[in-house]
Amino acid sequence: MSLDEKLAQLVGVWLNVNREEGVVAPLQDSMQGEDVQFEAFAKDGVGQITRHFGTRPVEPEWARAALAGRQRWLRESTRLGIPALAHEECLTGLAAWRATTYPAPPAWGASFDPALVEEMGRRIGESMRSLGVHQGLAPVLDVIRDQRWGRVEECVSEDPYEVATICAAYVRGVQSTGVIATLKHFVGYSNSRAGRNLAPVHAGAREVADTLLFPFEVAVRDAGAGSVMNSYAEIDGVPIAADPHYLTEILRDRWGFEGTVVADYFAVAFLHTLHAVAEDAGDAAVQALTAGIDVELPTGVTYLEPLRQAVAEGRIEESLIDRALRRVLRQKAWLGLLDDDYDPEPSGPVDLDDPESRDLARRLAEESVILLTNDGVLPLAGDRRIAVVGPNADDVAALFGCYSFVQHVLPHFPGVETGLAAPTLLDALRAELPGARIGTAKGTGVDDGDRAGIPDAARLAAESDVAILVLGDRSGLFGRGTSGEGCDAESLDLPGAQRELAEAVLATGTPTVVVLMTGRAYAVPSIIEKAAAVVQAYFPGEEGAGAIARVLSGAVNPSGRLPMSMPRGIAGQPYSYLHPRLGGAGSVSNLDPAPVLSFGHGLSYTRFEYADLTAEAEVAAGAPIRCSVVVRNAGDRAGAEVVQVYAADRIASVTRPLAQLVGYARVELEPGRAAKVTFDVPARLLSFTGRDGRRVTEPGEVGLSVRRSVADVVDERTVTLTGPVYEFKGSERRLTGVSIEDHN
Amino acid sequence: MSLDEKLAQLVGVWLNVNREEGVVAPLQDSMQGEDVQFEAFAKDGVGQITRHFGTRPVEPEWARAALAGRQRWLRESTRLGIPALAHEECLTGLAAWRATTYPAPPAWGASFDPALVEEMGRRIGESMRSLGVHQGLAPVLDVIRDQRWGRVEECVSEDPYEVATICAAYVRGVQSTGVIATLKHFVGYSNSRAGRNLAPVHAGAREVADTLLFPFEVAVRDAGAGSVMNSYAEIDGVPIAADPHYLTEILRDRWGFEGTVVADYFAVAFLHTLHAVAEDAGDAAVQALTAGIDVELPTGVTYLEPLRQAVAEGRIEESLIDRALRRVLRQKAWLGLLDDDYDPEPSGPVDLDDPESRDLARRLAEESVILLTNDGVLPLAGDRRIAVVGPNADDVAALFGCYSFVQHVLPHFPGVETGLAAPTLLDALRAELPGARIGTAKGTGVDDGDRAGIPDAARLAAESDVAILVLGDRSGLFGRGTSGEGCDAESLDLPGAQRELAEAVLATGTPTVVVLMTGRAYAVPSIIEKAAAVVQAYFPGEEGAGAIARVLSGAVNPSGRLPMSMPRGIAGQPYSYLHPRLGGAGSVSNLDPAPVLSFGHGLSYTRFEYADLTAEAEVAAGAPIRCSVVVRNAGDRAGAEVVQVYAADRIASVTRPLAQLVGYARVELEPGRAAKVTFDVPARLLSFTGRDGRRVTEPGEVGLSVRRSVADVVDERTVTLTGPVYEFKGSERRLTGVSIEDHN
Repeated sequence: MSLDEKLAQLVGVWLNVNREEGVVAPLQDSMQGEDVQFEAFAKDGVGQITRHFGTRPVEPEWARAALAGRQRWLRESTRLGIPALAHEECLTGLAAWRATTYPAPPAWGASFDPALVEEMGRRIGESMRSLGVHQGLAPVLDVIRDQRWGRVEECVSEDPYEVATICAAYVRGVQSTGVIATLKHFVGYSNSRAGRNLAPVHAGAREVADTLLFPFEVAVRDAGAGSVMNSYAEIDGVPIAADPHYLTEILRDRWGFEGTVVADYFAVAFLHTLHAVAEDAGDAAVQALTAGIDVELPTGVTYLEPLRQAVAEGRIEESLIDRALRRVLRQKAWLGLLDDDYDPEPSGPVDLDDPESRDLARRLAEESVILLTNDGVLPLAGDRRIAVVGPNADDVAALFGCYSFVQHVLPHFPGVETGLAAPTLLDALRAELPGARIGTAKGTGVDDGDRAGIPDAARLAAESDVAILVLGDRSGLFGRGTSGEGCDAESLDLPGAQRELAEAVLATGTPTVVVLMTGRAYAVPSIIEKAAAVVQAYFPGEEGAGAIARVLSGAVNPSGRLPMSMPRGIAGQPYSYLHPRLGGAGSVSNLDPAPVLSFGHGLSYTRFEYADLTAEAEVAAGAPIRCSVVVRNAGDRAGAEVVQVYAADRIASVTRPLAQLVGYARVELEPGRAAKVTFDVPARLLSFTGRDGRRVTEPGEVGLSVRRSVADVVDERTVTLTGPVYEFKGSERRLTGVSIEDHN
Repeated sequence: MSLDEKLAQLVGVWLNVNREEGVVAPLQDSMQGEDVQFEAFAKDGVGQITRHFGTRPVEPEWARAALAGRQRWLRESTRLGIPALAHEECLTGLAAWRATTYPAPPAWGASFDPALVEEMGRRIGESMRSLGVHQGLAPVLDVIRDQRWGRVEECVSEDPYEVATICAAYVRGVQSTGVIATLKHFVGYSNSRAGRNLAPVHAGAREVADTLLFPFEVAVRDAGAGSVMNSYAEIDGVPIAADPHYLTEILRDRWGFEGTVVADYFAVAFLHTLHAVAEDAGDAAVQALTAGIDVELPTGVTYLEPLRQAVAEGRIEESLIDRALRRVLRQKAWLGLLDDDYDPEPSGPVDLDDPESRDLARRLAEESVILLTNDGVLPLAGDRRIAVVGPNADDVAALFGCYSFVQHVLPHFPGVETGLAAPTLLDALRAELPGARIGTAKGTGVDDGDRAGIPDAARLAAESDVAILVLGDRSGLFGRGTSGEGCDAESLDLPGAQRELAEAVLATGTPTVVVLMTGRAYAVPSIIEKAAAVVQAYFPGEEGAGAIARVLSGAVNPSGRLPMSMPRGIAGQPYSYLHPRLGGAGSVSNLDPAPVLSFGHGLSYTRFEYADLTAEAEVAAGAPIRCSVVVRNAGDRAGAEVVQVYAADRIASVTRPLAQLVGYARVELEPGRAAKVTFDVPARLLSFTGRDGRRVTEPGEVGLSVRRSVADVVDERTVTLTGPVYEFKGSERRLTGVSIEDHN
């Protein structure tokens, strides 16, 4: 292969981009040149085709044929005949026109149901495979650290163990179809200063190793993820895109990763233009390639001409290009792209939103709705006057996160329909409550601050038996939304005049159910205090409105649990429940950062009781800990409980969190039935980076507890870890084994 | 010496503490036992006597004699006859009843006048020496990182170079009198999570090394500080009190420190009770002593019985006790305590608030007042109707920081007078503006939220020619103030109803001068926009009211400059101007953390012009850079300009701040006169921790600029650093040489 042919395999090509239609990647307007001609760009071949389906609304079948045409041209008209790897965004479903849009990641977190997420991953993979797409740029394994960050809505949870298990399931699902999943953003991105997108990460090596890297380790080692995308972030002065410590030493040397590392869009160039650690584009390319970024995305602004020049000038060994090339070609071989009988055009009809996918979207949405508070107003009695009020009550946009096609791409194509049969919550309530007399009023917009409609909305509420107040975010990109990439929060009050709307409606005295459709956890302590019931739904996807409506009606018994703390105000940020004692309340500060509602909280229409918590009294440090508990549905209707096990290392050589999730199980129970849930907690979950940098579990006492939320301890046992300090070498089990047995 | 005699030298004794009078140290109520009997406690001797003057209001002369009596008893009635080292708090002057209270540290920062701070240090040292006190627990070298933290008011600046130079001056001043200064809090304390007191520090090793350690390095190496106090903080999981990396490797092995490391109050015990890294008090003592804490303060809860037990059980080598003991005794020898002719009772009359000290307090206060904005209303014309409004207008408490005796101790002794002749700002204005007709109204309290008085205050303003609105903090401890230790901020709005008061007064249309007497930088963008003038004064000390009044009248030409950014809102916190590009505004986030007014900003009643900026074009990396600029007083009255030089390392192997203060000079100029200011910027100031952990300066371009504030560039030159990467070994110059020559 010539150098040009090699370099061509290390870059993407992004076609059909019209800059005037607005940006969908950071600084795209300044980074992206004029629309390129494919044949000229790809004369020596090309590594990847960027967002063929995800850039404009195109008819899937037509676009599939066009993509196949590109691939045929590559096979037939380039010297080497190597097809491109086609990648797409797919976080909440394939980001293509008319494709099923699933709930956003916080909803996966709320479900605590990796099996269902795995099924979603499989269907997302199948949708990509049916179009000839090879790689999906999901999931996001960033651990939530600061609610101000706009991309919280792309993250699963505040807890790294939950992120790991849910995202590993997603990866397994996608990759079971022969499509490559991409772990992003490796690593640190969620920890940016003051929650501002791309701001520097101020974190120590131990925090990164023990908290932020863990989900990636699980997704690489346990789920075998095929690709990893770098984080835009710098950590403590060194941008990840230029850091061999993370991209090579940890990822490949320690974890044995053999897939490709792809650049987040324009991240290599940003080493020069944003981070100022590279002299020019060539230097940026040299640093990124050396650190371990194999493929530049979405185009080749640094890995083509600047890198060619750097090779010519002897600034980099060509062997590093070969290293990346081998990884790329190995992956293309695995995908079958190099097979003689490779057929670029998948057969069969295209249905990106088939009934099975919609049904799955419905089930996941139903499992993700969280009942935060309830004075008994829910489930709603039928045949009443109901006021459905608020900016998200009758807006289909409220269902979708910023990496959905609807929010990511369609805003640039006004007048184009969503291509989805997605009812609004108002629609769904009318369908679900046919006996109710439903009136509606918007009150105010999500963020327009318009108070003119508030009195009418309050009047409607006052004249009704019950009010349903639907508040929250509008997801978007780069300042065009109240949540999403580049939409960071100045306040954790609800955006615009929604707080005033809530106050006006609550002041009427009409029992009010507040439904929050948000991308982050807002600080709404007074709503939580005053509303008759509060439901948190994040962005629930195309079937989400029906799911919420069925929870409100009682057709579905809510079972979601908070995957992130609901703060009391903005002052406590950044906040994670994973803090040592001094990270919480204490008489040494007047401030108490404790959330209003804690990680893991969520109510049901039935009642669960716990009994018989057992745990081994003594275990050698390094061995798994077995514990079990019996959970019983003590109410009168079927429901699901998320059994949560937390550990607390009481004294350690470094400060440790007061509580840490080490196991969970979603248990469905008929009324009166009980199950015994047994957990084998691997010692790896109790390990940490010791003072000398080794990963260890130390002897001593560990509290093992069952909790309804991190703040609500049901019962606790003390386990004594015995023997010497145990050092982890890497091959140990990372995930808790769970078994659920009938116990009646 | 017996083990008991050795251990006795490593602890303090705190007498005359009455727990019911309230706490002055964190968790003191739970840590401090019943009042101890000195003779019983000190039967084997004692290392230190804690706050003999600073615990209760005691007549200095009587207390001096009592202290001398204790010392005589130690000499005569213990086997070894070793006197104790007496320590006191002294941040804003000796924290004793009736002692001069100087401006708080942010005011020192605002003055940009190390020479005057050194003189203050000397006078503070003299006051301690006159009482038989040997060690003062100041200055605070924490670099301001988050305006929410209550102890911002104890810090000098957001810039580590300014902290270093000002605090080194303080140390030199104190120690020139034979009294030991104490550097605190070593290290990281100001960087606590979300600004909550004692919360964990999430910072990387490079941030700690390059930003937080620098002031300590200067104060140890350049100023020869005799003692260092540990920070309560943990950094990335390891409490400093148990970390030999900082307390021994950096402090002693790298910097050559030979003095004592003393524990912040109860910090050793906190390793067990708060950080949970020690099994019990004995383990805490072992870890702290091993790490390098020589003396436990304020008492001996871990270094007496628990440590004795640990030695008996072989959990620690007695050689580590001897190591600490040698340091303690060496210091006592240096202090003369071991001399045969040691006389514990200094002779001479005691006057802790003599005219020279008051005059110095006045000069420093005058230099520290910052004129933030001025539409021409200032200086005030005489003979007008003036409304003096606001909670801090007529409250002497507004003058004092939380480590003043007035705020630290006296609140526990209701009815005891301050012992100081400190006028309020209202008093001072009446004296300064005898021709004015001054009316006054409080409007609201600092934090009572009482709005009842606002209409009257607004009415008074409306009926006046000009309003002076005096807002801000009330300093206190552990939730008893709006600023100070344990008084962290939930919001950067002014406390209580002060914002509403300001809005009401400003709405009258009467030209309004807002005076901010605060412990931190509040977010007051609308006040800055609407007021006729805004003056920032921090806590200006006992002579501060007169200083502010004279600035308002024009008798003093203001010359203070902001030592910390004034933020636009709370969302940007934590914030430092020392950020790389991605730490500032950018199209990748909708939020812009840029402050309303930047570090270094401040106006004058005259006008300064700059010319002839020169800088060497090429300098070898590692060599100092000479640059010079001419500054001219182009107005019609005498004044002082703070000439500020900033450097920007444009491309480096790690991300570097967009601008960094590397030199400053306070230049007094008569009208029409000019001075040429020449700076020799040492390469150490441009150095950083490279990717391999070495401290280096790299070749490449550095922008050297003169700015009126970090956001207001007057002129810039490019300096090219040449040759190979220069590695710093530690002995290089750290401080910028400055010369000021007449240039007319």
